Amino acid sequence: MVNTIQSAADLNAPPVTKILAEYVAQHPSQGWNPEVEHEAHRTFLNWLGCAIGAANHESVHSALGAVHEFAPSPQATILGRSERVDMGSAALINGISSHTFDFDDTHLKTVIHPAGPVASAILALGEHVKASGRQIIDALVLGIDVACRVGNCMYPDHYHIGWHITGSTGMLGSAAACSRVLGLNTHQTQMAIGIAASQPIGVREQFGTMTKPFHPGGAARAGQMSALLAKHGFTSSPKALEAGRGFIQTVSTKADWKEIDQQLGKSFEISLNTYKPFACGIVIHPTIDACSQLKAKGVDYREVQKIELKVHPLVLELTGKKTPRTGLEGKFSIYYGAALGLVFGRASEHEYDDNIVNRPDVIAIRDKVIAQIDPNMSEASVEASAYLMNGQKISIRVEHAIGSLQNPMSDQALEDKFSYLCEPIIGARNTKELIQTCWQLGKLKNLDALLGLSVPKIGNS
Amino acid sequence: MVNTIQSAADLNAPPVTKILAEYVAQHPSQGWNPEVEHEAHRTFLNWLGCAIGAANHESVHSALGAVHEFAPSPQATILGRSERVDMGSAALINGISSHTFDFDDTHLKTVIHPAGPVASAILALGEHVKASGRQIIDALVLGIDVACRVGNCMYPDHYHIGWHITGSTGMLGSAAACSRVLGLNTHQTQMAIGIAASQPIGVREQFGTMTKPFHPGGAARAGQMSALLAKHGFTSSPKALEAGRGFIQTVSTKADWKEIDQQLGKSFEISLNTYKPFACGIVIHPTIDACSQLKAKGVDYREVQKIELKVHPLVLELTGKKTPRTGLEGKFSIYYGAALGLVFGRASEHEYDDNIVNRPDVIAIRDKVIAQIDPNMSEASVEASAYLMNGQKISIRVEHAIGSLQNPMSDQALEDKFSYLCEPIIGARNTKELIQTCWQLGKLKNLDALLGLSVPKIGNS
Repeated sequence: MVNTIQSAADLNAPPVTKILAEYVAQHPSQGWNPEVEHEAHRTFLNWLGCAIGAANHESVHSALGAVHEFAPSPQATILGRSERVDMGSAALINGISSHTFDFDDTHLKTVIHPAGPVASAILALGEHVKASGRQIIDALVLGIDVACRVGNCMYPDHYHIGWHITGSTGMLGSAAACSRVLGLNTHQTQMAIGIAASQPIGVREQFGTMTKPFHPGGAARAGQMSALLAKHGFTSSPKALEAGRGFIQTVSTKADWKEIDQQLGKSFEISLNTYKPFACGIVIHPTIDACSQLKAKGVDYREVQKIELKVHPLVLELTGKKTPRTGLEGKFSIYYGAALGLVFGRASEHEYDDNIVNRPDVIAIRDKVIAQIDPNMSEASVEASAYLMNGQKISIRVEHAIGSLQNPMSDQALEDKFSYLCEPIIGARNTKELIQTCWQLGKLKNLDALLGLSVPKIGNS
Repeated sequence: MVNTIQSAADLNAPPVTKILAEYVAQHPSQGWNPEVEHEAHRTFLNWLGCAIGAANHESVHSALGAVHEFAPSPQATILGRSERVDMGSAALINGISSHTFDFDDTHLKTVIHPAGPVASAILALGEHVKASGRQIIDALVLGIDVACRVGNCMYPDHYHIGWHITGSTGMLGSAAACSRVLGLNTHQTQMAIGIAASQPIGVREQFGTMTKPFHPGGAARAGQMSALLAKHGFTSSPKALEAGRGFIQTVSTKADWKEIDQQLGKSFEISLNTYKPFACGIVIHPTIDACSQLKAKGVDYREVQKIELKVHPLVLELTGKKTPRTGLEGKFSIYYGAALGLVFGRASEHEYDDNIVNRPDVIAIRDKVIAQIDPNMSEASVEASAYLMNGQKISIRVEHAIGSLQNPMSDQALEDKFSYLCEPIIGARNTKELIQTCWQLGKLKNLDALLGLSVPKIGNS
């Protein structure tokens, strides 16, 4: 608005803030095919299970301790817990819990975990304003579309610079989705997205600490607040995303504008969402999958001399932790991931317990893993070779791990994962009922039943 | 922590997160000379006046509307208003109001407005935890030091990229200051600064909108929350500032590490703070000063044919708005600033009323102003030449405007500015008493008297 010396990029940028605002405010309810509608329900179910499952984690305890200092009003549900807090704090806490196990979802084109910032914000807001399930699903699809399209525009440069792209695009998705739930008009939605554009959250250095899951939580809260500010007339630049000194050009050296509006309202980024079968960073999944396959092929980890992995350079940059000492650190260790595949054939949250990380036989096999960079590998693939003590060599090449877009988790597998996460918190009966309620979300008149099932009750089986 | 491929810069970076945390946690109370102590009180007084003065601005109304949606608990004072909200929301609102008139303070080395993010956070927190005035002054000095030192490390590149440096370093100052008020130890303070490092706020494109003052407010709230999270055991990377994928290298292409720890605890950045005599962007101040001097020399604006300004390129980049239509836009117009100097000889908040911006005689002289870029000028200087209709030319060269470090506002001038801002809100008697209370802040056992005077009361004179 006030930058009179504008860069060429500034002048060439299409008015994407307005384009996205118009889209979010005006796209018809359920204006997509049944596959998109179903994917939205899968996204929601998976996110809800992750949040409930982590409800008693120390990150959540700690964040809740801070939130309670504000003596928040009991507006909204904390998933998996009996406390209630204001809707902004609920967005924060549920966003933290849903990402705490690194077990949520992934838009693989950008490595955005899209549900955390968006679903956390709209469920808390929707509870308070008595939204319908239809409003939640519509807002989820549109909010995720906004975050991922901006992500597509900036990826990979934005990520490589150091941003944790989930939190640094998530506030836009949250603002868009909350605007939709609130029924804001195009101008108000544009202001909301603009206010959110000043609040990207998260640098990658935080990986391996509680601040990593803070990123989607903080983004959820920031976007929700942005929508509420816009509702009350707060203003922002109408070209906050695209201007020369706006968000995108400040946080990214790449700005491929067409990613934002091509096929807008026709193809939906939520169709590209995937769900994690393993509770760790997505780039370790091919390795766990490959090593689980080695185990299934009869490889006994006690008879292994050496495991060789060939991976894309980014994989090792993100997960090169050689000697993790805690479960959290283990989530960023490809060496540990390989060991889990070989020893257990799985990598759920239990396998990231500190006790297992420090088990001598697990450490022994972990230390036999060698990871080599191979620029010819894709980020989604791995070649894992087991050299056995008897001289045998067995190799597995995984092009697309289980849980990838090409090899997706089935609805049944998602339900099993949900049950694994939720049964210890809300009991088996409620878990089963909650799954059915989630599949029906788009048809629910209100969120009462869903929220009632999402918290522990005395006497739960 | 998990980035195994580290850049050279990463390996060479000193552990500045820890260095700053140790400093904030351990530096002795009032561990500086009387000049620094006095500057802290000037900083506080000036900030308080700006916040109270803007208490009824539509930005504050609008933000308060959003905050009330959370039904906040009445923990803390909103300056200049009778409502009370939770301490996080109070930090947000007071941070917004203090920057709303663009009339606050400036650390000229970095163009950071340092009090907004820091004072807003600690006053609200301090009220709730019953801090002493001594704790507030100590935290103010140390918090501003942290924000400005990180600013020094990154300026000017960080600013040129597009960040509004007040909000994108302010969350660090706020986190540090709140950690100090809470009495956190070095490790906890390090975690707090680390959590804040994931939450920079503000892109420059927002200048001229309500989201600009949102930046210090949002930074205040983010830093306060970070300190509370750290108090409750929330973790972040211990090298969140300096790591290759940490804050500084993600948001800046320049990282001059020595700026952070040289003379740490010996020289204090608050000594370099300045206060605005004019209610607009700092780079317009030399122009207003020069044009006011032209008026004082007898130049009648109705007899001016043309005004020529020579300024540094950045000045025009920031303030090149040729035809402002609102007071807010006027704050980013060097042309309008020159007109105010010539017509009124001042530029307080009243001169940024929409009615004055649109007054025909003001528009007429504004349109006669020509600004020329001269790379030989410094950002702090201007040469203003009035060409009169009678053929006369009168020039004024301002090297350092009133309010600059070289030509500072006196204590009396600060008090006059404070009274100008506060009397319409809290009355003349309370304003006078509040000024005296501010000068004594470092000796006050608690904040009750100060806060009591900072809000309007029925029957105020």
